Amino acid sequence: MKEETIERIRKFTEERDWDQFHSPANIAKSIVIEAAELLECFQWDEEGFDTQHVKEELADVIVYCQDMLDKLGLDVDEIVNMKMAQNEAKYPVEKAKGSAAKYNEL
Amino acid sequence: MKEETIERIRKFTEERDWDQFHSPANIAKSIVIEAAELLECFQWDEEGFDTQHVKEELADVIVYCQDMLDKLGLDVDEIVNMKMAQNEAKYPVEKAKGSAAKYNEL
Amino acid sequence: MKEETIERIRKFTEERDWDQFHSPANIAKSIVIEAAELLECFQWDEEGFDTQHVKEELADVIVYCQDMLDKLGLDVDEIVNMKMAQNEAKYPVEKAKGSAAKYNEL
Amino acid sequence: MKEETIERIRKFTEERDWDQFHSPANIAKSIVIEAAELLECFQWDEEGFDTQHVKEELADVIVYCQDMLDKLGLDVDEIVNMKMAQNEAKYPVEKAKGSAAKYNEL
Repeated sequence: MKEETIERIRKFTEERDWDQFHSPANIAKSIVIEAAELLECFQWDEEGFDTQHVKEELADVIVYCQDMLDKLGLDVDEIVNMKMAQNEAKYPVEKAKGSAAKYNEL
Repeated sequence: MKEETIERIRKFTEERDWDQFHSPANIAKSIVIEAAELLECFQWDEEGFDTQHVKEELADVIVYCQDMLDKLGLDVDEIVNMKMAQNEAKYPVEKAKGSAAKYNEL
Repeated sequence: MKEETIERIRKFTEERDWDQFHSPANIAKSIVIEAAELLECFQWDEEGFDTQHVKEELADVIVYCQDMLDKLGLDVDEIVNMKMAQNEAKYPVEKAKGSAAKYNEL
Repeated sequence: MKEETIERIRKFTEERDWDQFHSPANIAKSIVIEAAELLECFQWDEEGFDTQHVKEELADVIVYCQDMLDKLGLDVDEIVNMKMAQNEAKYPVEKAKGSAAKYNEL
């Protein structure tokens, strides 16, 4: 995400004085609430989804993820690289290739 | 997120031949599953959370959001700016300032 | 659910002195966390699910729903009948038959 | 839940010919979607919730749980007692009393 998009998200919260509501726990609730709205786009029909609706709900999830990063002072590249290193170790290519099994069942 | 971090996410999926499992519906399920694991960090205690655990679960949500962007060929800045424009219109500063009410109750 | 099963759920919480953690908000978080674990049974493969695992996760959701009923002093038949009356009105048979559309799109 | 309430839920689905949409995976998605709507009642304020709204969303979760029981031919008392036996073993009273720790941290 570009710095100016991130700034727009921050300014939105600041101008409305909403930081008081953005405890980490409340943001976590918000992420799952928006994620469920995204899932609702695929509730009864997994193929014929409304792309515009998907875009809106996915954007909501991403915005709250940015709020969480900001609230906890986290660097997105740092945490994603840390987690990807874990994932790469848990799912070695030779074992995981073409399989949807969980790491503890590989 | 830096381009090289995004590339690491893409390479992870490609090397494991996992694109076959990444239907938009399955990614939507995965986002909500990881979002609930993030929420679990705050299940019984909203203050004394384990930051390392929060980082890992938040990273998982962000990785699946990137998978969805890739799967649908979406531009993160475009969809976030589109949604922020909607949010700014739904929550005018003068009405929403300091209030946690939903837009239809402002 | 039989009264003796409900009593077993209540006794489980009482004996562990866990009522202190069971605020309505915490129970709501727990329901969504368990619901996401149920969804995980269908994450990558919607047909070949593990029935034993589904039973366990579904039971977890039901137990927390019972905790919420107890916490708020609600009668399950009363709230379900109240909601079914709403659903019946929102989805008239002649309009909704065979359609997965939302009530506001019928 | 009384047998007549359960029958009302079944009749609702049958009359609308909705069994075709009620795959176990779709019901699992529906449970998490409704559970997130229940959580939304506590999103920004965990104390001042709207009880009527909570009742409606909790009822939705319970109705979809009943749909899942029916779809898979499960007996609610059997699966809840099976799970409670597991929980009682995982959380012995003497260790778990007054603690919100997960079983693997007791």
